[in-house]
Amino acid sequence: MNSFGFKIIHQSKKSRARVGQIQTPHGVIDTPNFVAVGTNATLKAIDSEMATSIGLQLMFCNTYHLMLQPGTQTIAKAGGLHKFINRNAPIITDSGGFQVFSLAYGTVKDELKSKGQKKANNSVLKINEEGVTFRSYRDGAKIVLTPESSIQAQKDLGADIIIPFDELPPYHMDQRALEKSLHRTHRWEKRSLDQHLLNPQGQAMYAVVHGGINPDLRKLSCSVLSQLPFDGYAIGGSLGKTHQEMFDMLSYVVPALPETKPNHLLGIGDLTSIEECIKLGIDTFDSSHPTRCARHGLLFTKQGNYKILHSANREAFIPVDETCTCIVCQKYTRAYLHHLFKAHEMTGYMLATIHNLHFMVQLMAEYRSKILLGEI
Amino acid sequence: MNSFGFKIIHQSKKSRARVGQIQTPHGVIDTPNFVAVGTNATLKAIDSEMATSIGLQLMFCNTYHLMLQPGTQTIAKAGGLHKFINRNAPIITDSGGFQVFSLAYGTVKDELKSKGQKKANNSVLKINEEGVTFRSYRDGAKIVLTPESSIQAQKDLGADIIIPFDELPPYHMDQRALEKSLHRTHRWEKRSLDQHLLNPQGQAMYAVVHGGINPDLRKLSCSVLSQLPFDGYAIGGSLGKTHQEMFDMLSYVVPALPETKPNHLLGIGDLTSIEECIKLGIDTFDSSHPTRCARHGLLFTKQGNYKILHSANREAFIPVDETCTCIVCQKYTRAYLHHLFKAHEMTGYMLATIHNLHFMVQLMAEYRSKILLGEI
Repeated sequence: MNSFGFKIIHQSKKSRARVGQIQTPHGVIDTPNFVAVGTNATLKAIDSEMATSIGLQLMFCNTYHLMLQPGTQTIAKAGGLHKFINRNAPIITDSGGFQVFSLAYGTVKDELKSKGQKKANNSVLKINEEGVTFRSYRDGAKIVLTPESSIQAQKDLGADIIIPFDELPPYHMDQRALEKSLHRTHRWEKRSLDQHLLNPQGQAMYAVVHGGINPDLRKLSCSVLSQLPFDGYAIGGSLGKTHQEMFDMLSYVVPALPETKPNHLLGIGDLTSIEECIKLGIDTFDSSHPTRCARHGLLFTKQGNYKILHSANREAFIPVDETCTCIVCQKYTRAYLHHLFKAHEMTGYMLATIHNLHFMVQLMAEYRSKILLGEI
Repeated sequence: MNSFGFKIIHQSKKSRARVGQIQTPHGVIDTPNFVAVGTNATLKAIDSEMATSIGLQLMFCNTYHLMLQPGTQTIAKAGGLHKFINRNAPIITDSGGFQVFSLAYGTVKDELKSKGQKKANNSVLKINEEGVTFRSYRDGAKIVLTPESSIQAQKDLGADIIIPFDELPPYHMDQRALEKSLHRTHRWEKRSLDQHLLNPQGQAMYAVVHGGINPDLRKLSCSVLSQLPFDGYAIGGSLGKTHQEMFDMLSYVVPALPETKPNHLLGIGDLTSIEECIKLGIDTFDSSHPTRCARHGLLFTKQGNYKILHSANREAFIPVDETCTCIVCQKYTRAYLHHLFKAHEMTGYMLATIHNLHFMVQLMAEYRSKILLGEI
């Protein structure tokens, strides 16, 4: 049943960029590729059928949110996430660990601003060796999340790729605390892997490399985790305050990972980062950025991004992008989308989402072509 | 170019129900039929492509809203409403008259409660023989709507069927005021028709029969308007406080209209009314009811309507309606829709809208069959 695999089709001679193919029980993922985020088991403005028809090969769902609503056991009873949402293509779930961090410190951006101070109102009650105890934002119920319970939740969901439970230390943490957190994360990841291997269910598990922007800790994390039989490697934790910090970190992290395994960069999907990260050898990226931008009326085109609400689009009876082949660009105009956004109509959010996701799918296909052609 | 026409395919012997076909420049409308309302040139949670694939033959758009956003001249520049929204099927627009009423008195429901008192904050500045002056809810601009300007706006929009400018007197109006309003409405409708006939553009115009629930005034309205070369007859104004008042009114109004012309009942689309009104000879109905219900999680089935948020649906891994052939019932479960509504996800509103509209399309097809089979 475990049909997970990865093959490298072409390795660039110019950079670490590579073209590959990840095999999963629900189909292939061509790499490098973009992974759209459907937090609540939906891409918000489009349904699963549309996501598939756009050509989105991998979808990211958040275990934490699905634990609270509708509950992972409900999804297990439905026959797993694929059946629940009607997606016959690969899905990846996270461990809920990221939410521990964001509940405690706010978003990564907030945390960078607050210099690591905990949020006054945070719902995390306790973090210890066992795991983390927090209150549900839905009903206030006390929930204990451990490596074992996170993996059990991800077994219920049945995604093709799952993630071990980790702690996300804040960017602003002293060296000793960071080291302590890293070691605990490694113990949690090992416990997660052990739990997973009791019943693999055809799922693959990617480790999460931590260590912030400390080269020694990052390399240590790569070394510790590479010795365990993970199917791939995700790069998580604080990725730096600037693009350059992240690129610097990836330039020593990626070479320290097993070359024959796929890797994934967690939570990064802005267009500026993607090209550079591909050159640094990243295989997949997940981000809610393109879909969130779409719902705010920021449309992606090869000629640059633009705001559909700009008055210049009021009578622009041309496609969102004249070079684009998506159904929105075939059927509707900028002027219509401008109107829909002006009138706060959901259809606008839907059409913009379709366009931006199609843009990402095409962009990644072009990067793969460029690597194959030796241009990257 | 004017390819508007109506043929009666079958007249029931049991009732006034009839099966017919309206021909328009953008295709046919089988009658009796339901007309979905897309106020802002969208059905809110679905796009035009989806509306067509559901089989929705006629779509209603509101001239008043489109005058204010994006402006009917913008739509004219786009090549008309069909091109603007990418709909290659019939569209009907109203005159804006209904909004004069609702701005002045609130919704029909509010007005029934308030016994005809004007809203304290109403934006209507003046109603006289020329027309009505009001303030835009968007930018406060002063707008004069007259029969001529309403028709010009509807020429800009270019719908297949247009409506003359009328006044919607409140339900609570004394006999003399009602008569006065009715005569002015007739003068306005005549001016609208004259304006329309200067440049028909292949459009058809339906008169709007008024007179509230006063049989003499209603019959007078039918008589006056039947003498003018309208292409069809809409029944508007206050339709009564109860279903029975409306049925009683239709029982003498429909027979007073030209039998060979299509008729339309304005703003009625609840399931209870539809069957009775079909028997009374109504050809088309417009209402935002099925789409609004959908967005509030009320799903239509042959076994009755139900609330998707009811806890009984939490683990109901069955279609919304097991006898339904819509794509939502083929692809998704009640449990998934329940989850989407719980999580306030737009995809839920979209899927519910598709289902309810498909239900209406099928329901009307079944009524046509029943009439043909002599059951109604």
